[in-house]
Amino acid sequence: MADRVTALAAERFPVVELHFHPQCFLSAGHFAGTDTERAAAVVEIANDASFDAVWFGRGGYGSGRIAEAALGQLTDAARAKTYLGYSDAGVLLAGLYGRGFPGVVHGPMPADINRSGGEAAVARALSYLATGAVETLEPSVASSGKVAAFNLMTFSQLIGTPLQPDLAGHVLMLEEVSEYMYRIDRSLFHVTSNPAVRQVAGIRLGRCSAIPDNDPDFGQTEVEVVQHWCAKAGIPYLGRADIGHDAANKIVPFGGLRSA
Amino acid sequence: MADRVTALAAERFPVVELHFHPQCFLSAGHFAGTDTERAAAVVEIANDASFDAVWFGRGGYGSGRIAEAALGQLTDAARAKTYLGYSDAGVLLAGLYGRGFPGVVHGPMPADINRSGGEAAVARALSYLATGAVETLEPSVASSGKVAAFNLMTFSQLIGTPLQPDLAGHVLMLEEVSEYMYRIDRSLFHVTSNPAVRQVAGIRLGRCSAIPDNDPDFGQTEVEVVQHWCAKAGIPYLGRADIGHDAANKIVPFGGLRSA
Repeated sequence: MADRVTALAAERFPVVELHFHPQCFLSAGHFAGTDTERAAAVVEIANDASFDAVWFGRGGYGSGRIAEAALGQLTDAARAKTYLGYSDAGVLLAGLYGRGFPGVVHGPMPADINRSGGEAAVARALSYLATGAVETLEPSVASSGKVAAFNLMTFSQLIGTPLQPDLAGHVLMLEEVSEYMYRIDRSLFHVTSNPAVRQVAGIRLGRCSAIPDNDPDFGQTEVEVVQHWCAKAGIPYLGRADIGHDAANKIVPFGGLRSA
Repeated sequence: MADRVTALAAERFPVVELHFHPQCFLSAGHFAGTDTERAAAVVEIANDASFDAVWFGRGGYGSGRIAEAALGQLTDAARAKTYLGYSDAGVLLAGLYGRGFPGVVHGPMPADINRSGGEAAVARALSYLATGAVETLEPSVASSGKVAAFNLMTFSQLIGTPLQPDLAGHVLMLEEVSEYMYRIDRSLFHVTSNPAVRQVAGIRLGRCSAIPDNDPDFGQTEVEVVQHWCAKAGIPYLGRADIGHDAANKIVPFGGLRSA
């Protein structure tokens, strides 16, 4: 996977020089290395001024186990760079954005190369890293002011913790994958019931893919469910967002486009 | 199911008179009736002084959709009675306990009669409702001061919402069913990262049953995982609790045993 991503970058974005930290290839039970090894790898790259960006290798689950330790060790060099990923990496994105880091970005990761059409996703991320190309962005970003994007369940499980960022006035984009409709409903109940989340400017729903069959049928679509909870919470529902666990997943720079 | 529970009650606990609200037999997609029908049923029975208890029929998912509406309509008559259930019903238990209702209880429900050995679970609940029999209680309750019990994921998805009760000084018992180890880990990260939860007197882990296989093996047991997060959070881990999604599920009266 790393070789394929490196080859794609060399061919199409030679300005980008990729370095896969050896930790990416470790294994410790569910995780790519122990918590100590994983936190040390993030901190090492983040604090090294010779790197311009930290590109999270993949999602899965594990960021929550290292977030507190890793975030506490970051220096000014770490503050100056771009952090790109999504899914479970949203835990670290949340913590970084909450600490005022300016370059926090939701978008494709190297592991997306394994998806159908995944080279386009990886190329989109590389294009954004290389030039910040506007065409890589989620279409509503340009007209939205402040924005943020998360996997729904990942965001739900940050609510009420020190990692929950202040998203007052932001358009909040949420996407989901492989969750039953009743769980999507429950997570939206959770997220929209939080008083701080009720200060967002609105919610956009990304794609909810690979939803297992509900028995009996849930009776409502994901759009009906998000509209239900937004109405209850007094949060404007702003329509769909072009993000998801798929190759079409567009780039969402937290905070939105900075004025020139 | 209702007939079997009614017959069991008539035979073994004739002092208990059961009334199944017609709403229990409705169906609307995933739910036993629309949100309006379900909230109205809870409110009707809760506010009717001729009933001594509200015994939630079953878990599943749905309490969160009616909690705000139902809780807002409860009167003093509702405050005087016992509320018994677990799993998803924990959403309502949380809200009732947070409002200072004295009779909030975690324990078996009528639907447990469908479990292997389920008659014992239902009889335990009926015995508690009939006489408050001490032998129905989770064994640590007698020596624990204030206590509360929840399904882990249900509790996780209350964190940071107005339904989250103040459990400072309580022993918090958490059980789980049918969740991957990585999700148990993630939910415990979430719960123990909440500043208010860090005020509990300690956590006891109920049974975590029907855990799907993790690929690769997660590498840690549920006890190792709860010990990990308790240590990080400065929360005493107090050992196991005799609760779970099974016929052995014991009774936990929120707040603990009241002094005589």
